[in-house]
Amino acid sequence: MLIIDCHGHYTTAPDAHQQFRDKQLARLKDPSLPAPAPARISDDEIRETIEKNQLKLQRDRGADITLFSPRASAMAHHVGDEATSSAWTRACNDLIKRVVDLYPENFVGVCQLPQSPGVPIANSIAELKRCITELGFVGCNLNPDPSGGHWQSPPLTDQHWYPFYGQMVALDVPAMIHVSASCNPNFHATGAHYINADTTAFMQFIEGDLFRDFPTLRFVIPHGGGAVPYHWGRYRGLADMLKRPALAQHVMKNVFFDTCVYHQPGIDLLVDVIDLDNILFGSEMVGAVRGIDPETGNYFDDTKRYIDALRIAEEDKRRIYELNARRVYPRLDTLLKARNL
Amino acid sequence: MLIIDCHGHYTTAPDAHQQFRDKQLARLKDPSLPAPAPARISDDEIRETIEKNQLKLQRDRGADITLFSPRASAMAHHVGDEATSSAWTRACNDLIKRVVDLYPENFVGVCQLPQSPGVPIANSIAELKRCITELGFVGCNLNPDPSGGHWQSPPLTDQHWYPFYGQMVALDVPAMIHVSASCNPNFHATGAHYINADTTAFMQFIEGDLFRDFPTLRFVIPHGGGAVPYHWGRYRGLADMLKRPALAQHVMKNVFFDTCVYHQPGIDLLVDVIDLDNILFGSEMVGAVRGIDPETGNYFDDTKRYIDALRIAEEDKRRIYELNARRVYPRLDTLLKARNL
Repeated sequence: MLIIDCHGHYTTAPDAHQQFRDKQLARLKDPSLPAPAPARISDDEIRETIEKNQLKLQRDRGADITLFSPRASAMAHHVGDEATSSAWTRACNDLIKRVVDLYPENFVGVCQLPQSPGVPIANSIAELKRCITELGFVGCNLNPDPSGGHWQSPPLTDQHWYPFYGQMVALDVPAMIHVSASCNPNFHATGAHYINADTTAFMQFIEGDLFRDFPTLRFVIPHGGGAVPYHWGRYRGLADMLKRPALAQHVMKNVFFDTCVYHQPGIDLLVDVIDLDNILFGSEMVGAVRGIDPETGNYFDDTKRYIDALRIAEEDKRRIYELNARRVYPRLDTLLKARNL
Repeated sequence: MLIIDCHGHYTTAPDAHQQFRDKQLARLKDPSLPAPAPARISDDEIRETIEKNQLKLQRDRGADITLFSPRASAMAHHVGDEATSSAWTRACNDLIKRVVDLYPENFVGVCQLPQSPGVPIANSIAELKRCITELGFVGCNLNPDPSGGHWQSPPLTDQHWYPFYGQMVALDVPAMIHVSASCNPNFHATGAHYINADTTAFMQFIEGDLFRDFPTLRFVIPHGGGAVPYHWGRYRGLADMLKRPALAQHVMKNVFFDTCVYHQPGIDLLVDVIDLDNILFGSEMVGAVRGIDPETGNYFDDTKRYIDALRIAEEDKRRIYELNARRVYPRLDTLLKARNL
């Protein structure tokens, strides 16, 4: 079976890429500065950052393919205006394309979107189309809170988002729901904002009727679904209290959780309460938690070890590692089939 | 052993109490209206609402004592101004005192605070003192987000909160960290805002050094600690990444989780990863999830069943049911000892 990691970010991009970003930020403070051009980065610079990090760990840990997108915490849609976000997003996605072209067997592209607070999501459609149809990417990361921890957009079930969903359906690509950095001091990015966003999105789906309007729309909620599996009884009970249909019909035909849960008991719970067809292998390495767990001697984010340790049938592991990802990301499946995989 | 439920709210208060609130809200729209007086409620009205609900379920389920506070979702600190919050809070706490006086063997008081957005937390000290020293309550509910889902206060580790913590320490009472209703349409109250607040508070404690400044300050994080136990590896790893001390020393001498997790696998995880000395029995009945789980035939919020089903020693169950609560709420312990319990 193939081991497909559905959740990887280019967290180790060459310094020149950040220098481009720094020039963008400098220009926000001093608009008389010239608009910077994206960094000129050599193939060797990319190889250096990938081979020592994501590719090394992919090989060390025994994964085959990573769905690879720009660094989530650096999307920072709340910084600057739409033009800032648009230029930054394009540069980030182009850099992912470079990685994919250098290592086509190991990485498949997922795009960032040029979201910006108060800007219609329809303005992100062109970049989605470019990345899917021109760059060959297979999905996108959708930020439910471009304000960065102030939560000023309407819920994901609001008509506000519908134009974009229409395009996702037309292109047959899913979105991972992924916030970025937090500019609200209450929320640590990876310790609170990320997990809260996952939980929040799921509850919005319970309250709304989004998948009645878009029966084939698909979302991956990362970080093991936030708090949801741990509180699965609460969510089943709330759906009942709110007179919503059962979650299996109302939400779980369209919503999937990754396995970015960094200890064995968490993964055990996830697999215990969530239907295996709704779980996609993911690690988010090299990401939020890079250290070694002193209790196990292994990296916290080496989530493959937790899946491997599960007492479930090999065929069930294959659903988590490969088959669910191929079903949720049909363009990935097409691409793999073209390689006889 | 005693079965102490650390988390109960008066969610079934007599209609007249809500009518008082409605008059308050009407006056916010039309300040020419007279300031309403708290409702006149008879003992029989209180008996009716308690005996059919919280007391009935307490007996049916086999609990002995509930730490009882005003309805959390109705605190609504974001509504109106400080005077509104203050009058409402006093009426709510006085009503809890009535319940405790009618059923002193079954209920022990925990108070709401007259918080209001932008108002110094020091202004809540007088009501805390009144409830603890005059009404005989044993703890309080502290709202980390009086703005109701906009998160405009500083983090709980900020000096902003210190004057109140000083009083908590002086009175030797813990706070349950409990948000109220959400006026941010992104956050369903009990399905997102509550759980997010729990997760957020815990991460704030990791980032900060609050318990260095207040070594005896104690918090109960409800709803099983939000997402924290499910992501315990993430939090251990983040503490390490942020070069904080190990959680056992840095946070878990001062922070406790209740058992308001409404299915067996969630409780199993909680007890598996969190030290038993940090877990207090709680149900939050009659609360967010009032239905019967079709998978078990029992009420979702009958959390005693999940604890009873654990394969741990009776003495360990006693820690969860009784001993931890007596340690975290010393005034409860004093009160019980005076009754030879």
